Amino acid sequence: MANDAVAVAGGAETEIALPDLQQLAIQLFQTFREMSFDGVGISRETYGPRETAAMEVIQRLGCDLGIETSWDAARNLILRLPGRDPALPAVATGSHLDSVPQGGNFDGAAGVIASLMALLSARARGRPLRTIELYVLRGEESAWYGGPCYFGSRALFGQLTRADFSSPHRSSGHDLEHHMASCGVDLAPLKARQPLCDPTALACWMELHIEQGPVLVAREKPIGLVTGIRGNVRHRRVTCRGEAAHSGAVPRWLRRDAVLGMAELLMRLDEHWRVLLEWGEDLVVTSGIVETNPKEHAVSRVPGEVTFALEYRSQDAKTLTSFGALVQSECAQLASKRGVTFDFGTPALTPPARMSDKITGLLEREAEAAGVAFEVLASGAGHDTAVFANADVPSSMIFVRNDKGSHNPHEAMDYADFFAGAEVLARGIWQAANHAGEFRP
Amino acid sequence: MANDAVAVAGGAETEIALPDLQQLAIQLFQTFREMSFDGVGISRETYGPRETAAMEVIQRLGCDLGIETSWDAARNLILRLPGRDPALPAVATGSHLDSVPQGGNFDGAAGVIASLMALLSARARGRPLRTIELYVLRGEESAWYGGPCYFGSRALFGQLTRADFSSPHRSSGHDLEHHMASCGVDLAPLKARQPLCDPTALACWMELHIEQGPVLVAREKPIGLVTGIRGNVRHRRVTCRGEAAHSGAVPRWLRRDAVLGMAELLMRLDEHWRVLLEWGEDLVVTSGIVETNPKEHAVSRVPGEVTFALEYRSQDAKTLTSFGALVQSECAQLASKRGVTFDFGTPALTPPARMSDKITGLLEREAEAAGVAFEVLASGAGHDTAVFANADVPSSMIFVRNDKGSHNPHEAMDYADFFAGAEVLARGIWQAANHAGEFRP
Repeated sequence: MANDAVAVAGGAETEIALPDLQQLAIQLFQTFREMSFDGVGISRETYGPRETAAMEVIQRLGCDLGIETSWDAARNLILRLPGRDPALPAVATGSHLDSVPQGGNFDGAAGVIASLMALLSARARGRPLRTIELYVLRGEESAWYGGPCYFGSRALFGQLTRADFSSPHRSSGHDLEHHMASCGVDLAPLKARQPLCDPTALACWMELHIEQGPVLVAREKPIGLVTGIRGNVRHRRVTCRGEAAHSGAVPRWLRRDAVLGMAELLMRLDEHWRVLLEWGEDLVVTSGIVETNPKEHAVSRVPGEVTFALEYRSQDAKTLTSFGALVQSECAQLASKRGVTFDFGTPALTPPARMSDKITGLLEREAEAAGVAFEVLASGAGHDTAVFANADVPSSMIFVRNDKGSHNPHEAMDYADFFAGAEVLARGIWQAANHAGEFRP
Repeated sequence: MANDAVAVAGGAETEIALPDLQQLAIQLFQTFREMSFDGVGISRETYGPRETAAMEVIQRLGCDLGIETSWDAARNLILRLPGRDPALPAVATGSHLDSVPQGGNFDGAAGVIASLMALLSARARGRPLRTIELYVLRGEESAWYGGPCYFGSRALFGQLTRADFSSPHRSSGHDLEHHMASCGVDLAPLKARQPLCDPTALACWMELHIEQGPVLVAREKPIGLVTGIRGNVRHRRVTCRGEAAHSGAVPRWLRRDAVLGMAELLMRLDEHWRVLLEWGEDLVVTSGIVETNPKEHAVSRVPGEVTFALEYRSQDAKTLTSFGALVQSECAQLASKRGVTFDFGTPALTPPARMSDKITGLLEREAEAAGVAFEVLASGAGHDTAVFANADVPSSMIFVRNDKGSHNPHEAMDYADFFAGAEVLARGIWQAANHAGEFRP
């Protein structure tokens, strides 16, 4: 049946017609959903059996369709459509097949299926100039091993660390190394940090993914084209200290109120954020956790201490640095104004990734040619694409509108939007695969 | 020895000389400290054995000195110095003898001892026109029965409620009624809300107490004279609700951040507070507890909910009402600006108490005559005096400088300051006891 679908799709030569590939895609989504339902949502564990099972579905389908498939040392799956000039760097596409626990079916899988549709439609159109490679990546999610993520894509470029291998699974009692070994991973080259893939052998990388935020729904656009993936600075626990005191007995002018110190800092940062957005900077600021100390706080006590989280994200590393300096400068002013101190501890840093203007521009032209409305936006969430981009592979992403956020069973992606995104991806890959020039700046 | 002290103090006729009464006072403080040390600080439990023991020290001393002593139905202790005209309302003074757990020795006891010094020095000067009554009150602190307090003074005016009697002790497993009965309280009249004291039989009330805040230390004044006791409005748990979301994926314009909603409310109230103080209003605003929900908060999550406490205090009931309306108006603005809601629940209200201008004025004149520098200030903490004032007994208070706050073992009151305050109290009581006119407005 799958063979039939491809045969039909192969009928058109100059136009990419996808009706039967669309049936295949819907069937794959259904298969994945049935295989991965955990009673509440979808669970395809990073380096776990349901992730492996979903990858094997793609591998068997590739074999059935006569496509060259291989597993690398990290047990990523690669499907390859050889080009006319094997000496030219390949066009790469793909996404991941794991999910968070009790997650949704589309996060990751949509990109793998769209990339497969693009590969099959390219094959139907004839042999492209460049080789097209589909990477079905493993272990993109951070939920299973307490923070570290992008294991499959980072393994491609020899980036896994000792800390990664010893990260404990959220519930099994074993570490990543144990679970990788269970999946047949060849640990030696990974531990030796040998790249499994030469980034200069890749001309570019494109990934389709559901949007994890509400922008496309709000803007009423089926797809988004991504300009960058935000990096972030995370302070998990900032402590603002003042002096605890009897709320009735200590007047305003003798107070050192830690909560008001924090509140004023957050208000100042919120105002800077507003202005910096108008200034054209890319920035997101969040304080998702605030807590006075339950052992000593009281309704009638001037709070002497409060802890809070502070995270800021930007596509631009310079913005992250500058905003960090602004935070410190505000804290210094508040320290003298309110008699409080701020202790930020050591932040966790994730570098931003810039998308390639050439690849994003190519996708914009293809979206326009296909009549698909799009929004240009930044990705706030991290993606494997950031790993490719930071390995100097010219990269971009297509987001598909999705109503209920991701990482939950309520993801709501319309197939019509998915097919619009998949068509833009297929067109982009076809164009890139027949482009003889360089995508690197 | 105590008798000697009184005999010596009785030497002066026109001048109140207190050198040997001062020795008695220091000895009483030491006795109380030794009897009440709990290993960390001072514990004289509300309607408990160490409170009773301290009261019995005063009662025995009164008997030894030939002063009329009695216990009322609530087991408050009253010492009485009869005046020349028993038909005139009496001048009343006193304070409480209980402490918080692991508290300090001076909170309450300083007022009882100063009142005793005033009574003894009055006796030494000759028989005053009005009777002088010293009330050694029980159960002023709120720490032992989870909030309710002023049991002794409220019993005087028939104000104890069913809820008071059933308030559970913080650790014993019994309620207030049980512990009152253990101390020999006659519960029937208290439960029938029979006043133990006719407020019109009291000409005025004066109480000396250590300051529980830092104002006198900061102003470098040994004593303070009190203009009013602040009432308060307490919201133990205000909930600000917005919408939780992925911090990376949801841009500023689509956020409904509960923490920023709270922070902006607190900043606006802080600014109003600053302006209202300059406007001459008496006001204190505190948010002593803030907490996002540990079950759903995260560093990378826009906070969808935060709870916080809000307390505001004023000497002026109208200011409390008006500030409450201002809070609601700000919340309505923030609701539309930030897409959040505020749920305040039902507040707990404690009415303010105005001090008598006549009594405070009398104490001011006596402080000036004695050459004791003073500051005029409001009491932020509650006191038994508020119960007398709200029962229409013309009342005022003297605060004594105290460096380390109260309700802790580190209270730091200099005896020199205490003696200055006790002298002003003794002079004030002597003047009031020889004043034939009315103190009521």
